[in-house]
Order: sequence, then structure tokens, then C-alpha cells
Amino acid sequence: MIRFAAIIVFAVALTAGSAVAKEKKILLKMPLALPSSLPILGEGAVYFQDMVNAMDETIKVKLYEPGKLMPAFEIHDAVSTGKVNAGYSISGYIQGKVPAASLFAALPFGPTAEVFASWFREGNGGKLYQEMYEKNGYDIKVFPVAPYAAETAGWFRKPIESAEDFKGLKIRFFGLGGKAMAKLGASVALLPGAEIFPALEKGALDATEFSMPIVDKKLGFYKIAKYNYFPGWHQPSSTFELLINKKTWDSMSPRQQKVIQAAVEATSFHILTKSVAVQGKVMIENEKNGVHNMTFKPEVLSAIEKAWNEVAAEESAKDPFFKQVLEDQQQYFKEVSTFVKRSTISD
Amino acid sequence: MIRFAAIIVFAVALTAGSAVAKEKKILLKMPLALPSSLPILGEGAVYFQDMVNAMDETIKVKLYEPGKLMPAFEIHDAVSTGKVNAGYSISGYIQGKVPAASLFAALPFGPTAEVFASWFREGNGGKLYQEMYEKNGYDIKVFPVAPYAAETAGWFRKPIESAEDFKGLKIRFFGLGGKAMAKLGASVALLPGAEIFPALEKGALDATEFSMPIVDKKLGFYKIAKYNYFPGWHQPSSTFELLINKKTWDSMSPRQQKVIQAAVEATSFHILTKSVAVQGKVMIENEKNGVHNMTFKPEVLSAIEKAWNEVAAEESAKDPFFKQVLEDQQQYFKEVSTFVKRSTISD
Repeated sequence: MIRFAAIIVFAVALTAGSAVAKEKKILLKMPLALPSSLPILGEGAVYFQDMVNAMDETIKVKLYEPGKLMPAFEIHDAVSTGKVNAGYSISGYIQGKVPAASLFAALPFGPTAEVFASWFREGNGGKLYQEMYEKNGYDIKVFPVAPYAAETAGWFRKPIESAEDFKGLKIRFFGLGGKAMAKLGASVALLPGAEIFPALEKGALDATEFSMPIVDKKLGFYKIAKYNYFPGWHQPSSTFELLINKKTWDSMSPRQQKVIQAAVEATSFHILTKSVAVQGKVMIENEKNGVHNMTFKPEVLSAIEKAWNEVAAEESAKDPFFKQVLEDQQQYFKEVSTFVKRSTISD
Repeated sequence: MIRFAAIIVFAVALTAGSAVAKEKKILLKMPLALPSSLPILGEGAVYFQDMVNAMDETIKVKLYEPGKLMPAFEIHDAVSTGKVNAGYSISGYIQGKVPAASLFAALPFGPTAEVFASWFREGNGGKLYQEMYEKNGYDIKVFPVAPYAAETAGWFRKPIESAEDFKGLKIRFFGLGGKAMAKLGASVALLPGAEIFPALEKGALDATEFSMPIVDKKLGFYKIAKYNYFPGWHQPSSTFELLINKKTWDSMSPRQQKVIQAAVEATSFHILTKSVAVQGKVMIENEKNGVHNMTFKPEVLSAIEKAWNEVAAEESAKDPFFKQVLEDQQQYFKEVSTFVKRSTISD
């Protein structure tokens, strides 16, 4: 048996005449909205960078930590104007300018990560996402990337016995979920990750949400607020975005574009599977450190959902594109749930 | 504003002196265990092929339909001996020789697809999978690929009111789940996809499981057996495998290996998200064609689970590697479920 027969060499080595040899070399300068050191949130960008750089000789990705080239909230403008040619951010960061943007990052009371991710690919999500940037004058090609599993609903000093307990509560909260919390009477502030622990420590905050157990552990919230609530209704799944300046994207060869696409999809698979996998271990460790892993009572969750529905109706009334995106999501997720509900094995 | 500043050309075009130019060109001849025309089941291989061929000039993937080069069950041997240098199959197909093999394809009463996929990446699954081939003398590098969401529990002519109804039922059933069905008194046969419909038609079968709604629809079972049961306890998630002859793999450059890895991960993301997304629509169509989408009563599902636990205990007693893999899965999935249970929003 000639074992080496398996290796079929069908041509001589590539020469300078190949298609690859004619491509422009491209350096993607990529500022990050969150530090690369944060598990799940930052590591998607690192995975993407490593994947592209190892796979391809014509494209080089270089990451820049938040604030190094520009503040996180300015990444979208910088990519659009060509100050940099790429970025790794979250659509919710332009919520102030584009109200519908947050719906592409996370849908309160939405589905799990693989279903949300499928809306971009199999539903209208991808088209609407690109349309949002174009409508609002951004010269950007957008890729949803690194969808991750549910966050927690936050860290509280005391148990939440009823929705009344949110009244007057000083809480750090993100995006559309924050608006729902405010409806329930909470005093909501949006602090960056690094400022949360000090604010908890000196009592400026009673509670906070930030991310998943593995991320929140790094920020130390459990040392002060011992009640970690689930489910993370505000972000049952969240999605990052890879932004490429539209002219840069158009200048790439179809082969180079395929390399970017493959790396985006590989990164998405890595983050999706890892995010769902690594939290259980941290939650078990948390319990050993005195944390109570809690689930909201059904009546508390119902009150929150009612508040969210009011926010959703108000935002839809204010902005037709918000309404269009939300209705598209609702219809798509309803159809998919026909399968998901029946296929899930309950305990 | 100079828009084109975003495109940074950092070097002249590649020359024949680059690393890529020195790589061997490799043709991966890849027989398939299932037809490329089958949604989800076959399309993963097509996605992988298209991705690699579009991304890379040094590797070319060529698919061969089942039976074209060899029968599906001979793919493992052919890749190992170098008759072909790659294959796209399912580990369960060597269950006869290697009892533990089926545990890498699907675990009865196991978790959903993203959790099962994470076992290969974040748990010990990937290592144990490779170890299984090496221990059994296969000269193969294995990649788990294209994990997909739950199958259905099958198509029945009459409703299943109690576990007693399985007694004497002539049913087509796959793998470890088939052994559990047999314990409940069913008469189990494993027919290939193409032979199922004729067997149902002439009454040689009373019922059958095969795959997901979108696949089963193509095979026409709904025309005869009107009761489609859920959940697919026997395959709550299933995983295909990309097999590469070990010598071929070792002959690839690190860059070429990274291209394969990226394409495997991109394919996995595509199939995972698509499989969960497209079934709901088909189930709704099925109902319009007179199909009843059914859920097993809790007591029926309990009886099936009891039968599966007996099969698992028997297989574990017979084979230490089966025992090792199953216990590793159970421990890993238990830890992950600490998070999954709390993070899921129930209706």
C-alpha cells in the first residue's frame, strides 16, 4: 500500500502569475469598542485577527484597544469616513443617532443566540442591518459577528421579591432594557465597565448589569452585590459587528472577501459555542464565594416584560424603521419557535 | 476628505518567493455518506467545498456522491488507507466496529446543538474523538463539523398514546436510539433514506424516523404517516465529521491547515443556525397538508428515557471507552446546564 498516494499534487507551485499574486495587500486597522482582554466580548476580535492573519498573506488585521485611536463611540464615524478602514463594535452604541440600532445588538425577551444569529442569515436581519447603515449615511459594510449566549439580569445587594423593589433602585443598565427598567421606577445610569465596581463600592449604585458570569467575575461585582439574577431578559443573546469601510471592502478581490467572510463565520461559531459553555463553571465557583444564583419570580418577569412591551410600542410609534425591524424579528422568531418549542426536551 | 486613504497598500504584490508559492497544491477527493442534495445533511459538505475553493488557490475540494467511489460505510477505511484523502461522513457508521462511535454523532437525551458542539471545543470531545480513531487503527485526522438541531422522533400512522404502542411496531430507526426502541418492544430496522418511503407504502414499515422536517418532507413520509412526533430524543443534536487522511493533513502547511479549520468552523456556523431556523416553516406547511405535529406525553418520554438508560448502562458495561466518553459528556453537560437552565426565558 502506497500511503502517500493520498497526497495528490496536481500542479507545480504557484507562480507570480496566480490571482493571489495580483491582489492588493490590505492592512485592516481595527479599533475595538471593548478591551481585547474581556472574555467573549473582546476575544471575538482576537479570534478574527488570528484567523485572518494565519490564513492569508494578502490581508493583515491589526487591533487597537479602546481609546487608543479614538473613543469607542466614535468607531462608526471613523470607519465610515476612512479615518480607519475597519472596526469591531456594537450597533447599540449609535442608538442615540439611530434608534433601531439596538435591535441588531440584542432584543429584550428575544430568542437564544443560534436563533437570533439565524435571523441575520436566513431571515431579513442581514439586509436590514446593512440598510440601516446606508439609510443613515454610513459608508460601511457590516457583518454581524460573535453572537453570544444570555447575559445575566444583573447583580443586586438584596433579593428582588417583587417588581416594586425596582422603584428607586440605582442601577447601571444598557440599551433598550434600561428604558424598561426606568419604566419600573429604577434610576438608570449607563456606566462603562471600568467605572461600575467603584460606583458599587461607594454606594452610587445599588445594582448593576454588565455581561455574562465569566465577564462579570473579572470585574468583581460579586464582592459587593451577592444576588446574581437570571434570566438576562434584556440580552438573551447579543451580537457584535465587524465594520469595514465600504471603499476598502469594494477594493478587495472576491477571494479576499471570502477570507473575511470565513473568518467572521468561524469567529461566530467559536464565540457562540464558548459563551454557552463556560458560564456554568463560573456560576458554580461564584456560589462557593457566597453568591446566590437567583431566578426572577414569574410575576416579576411578567412585570418587566410588560414594561418592555410599552417601551417597544413607544419606540415603534416614534420611528418607522424601528417598527419595521421589530415586526420582522417578531414574525421570524414566531415561525422558528414552532420548531424550537417542540424540539426542546424539558426536564 | 480623501476616502481612499482607508485602503492601505503596505507592500508590492506577492511574488513567487512568498510562503504560499512554496506550498504543495492539494486536491481533496471527498466522498459523501449522504447525497449533497439533502438539506442540512448534505449541504454542509457543499458549503465547505465552496468556501475552501473560493478562499484558497492551493487547495481544491472535490465531492463525490454516495456510492460513486465507494459505499458510504467504506469511507472511513478508504480515507485511512489513502484510497481517497478525505471524506464527509458520520461516526455512527462505524458503530459496528467501534461501539463508542455513535456518542460523537448524537447523544440520546443530550443537549441542544450549540452545547453539544461546545463539548468538542471547550470540553474533552475533540480529544476523545481523535483518540477513538487512533486507538482503532484509523490513520485519520477528524473534525466534527456541521452540528445540527434536533431531528423529529419520527412519523407514525397512528398517535402514540402510551409506551405500550411501541410493542410490535415495525419502525426504521438509527443508532443508539434504535436500541432503546427495541427495548420497548419495537421491531427495529435500519433502512437507507431512499428505501424508507417504498417500505412505508407497502406496509413493511408502520413508522420511521429519519431526520428533520425539511429533510423528511423531501422524502415524502407525510403522505403516508400523518403523525410527526417531537422531541427527537434520539438526536437532540447531531454532528457530521470531516475526515482527512493523516499523511495528507501532515503534509499541509500551517496556513493550509488554518484554511481547513476556518472552513470547518464557517460550515458549522452555517448549518447550526440554518438547521434551527428553517424547520418551523416546514412544520407549518406540513400542518396544511394534514400532518399532526405532536409532542410525546411526559410518561411516554419517561419510558423511552428509561429504556435508553438501560441501553447506556449495558453498552458501558461492555466497553470501557464507551463508558469513558459517556461519563465525560454527562459531567460536562451537567456543568453547562447550570447556566443554560437559568438563562432560558420560559413562556
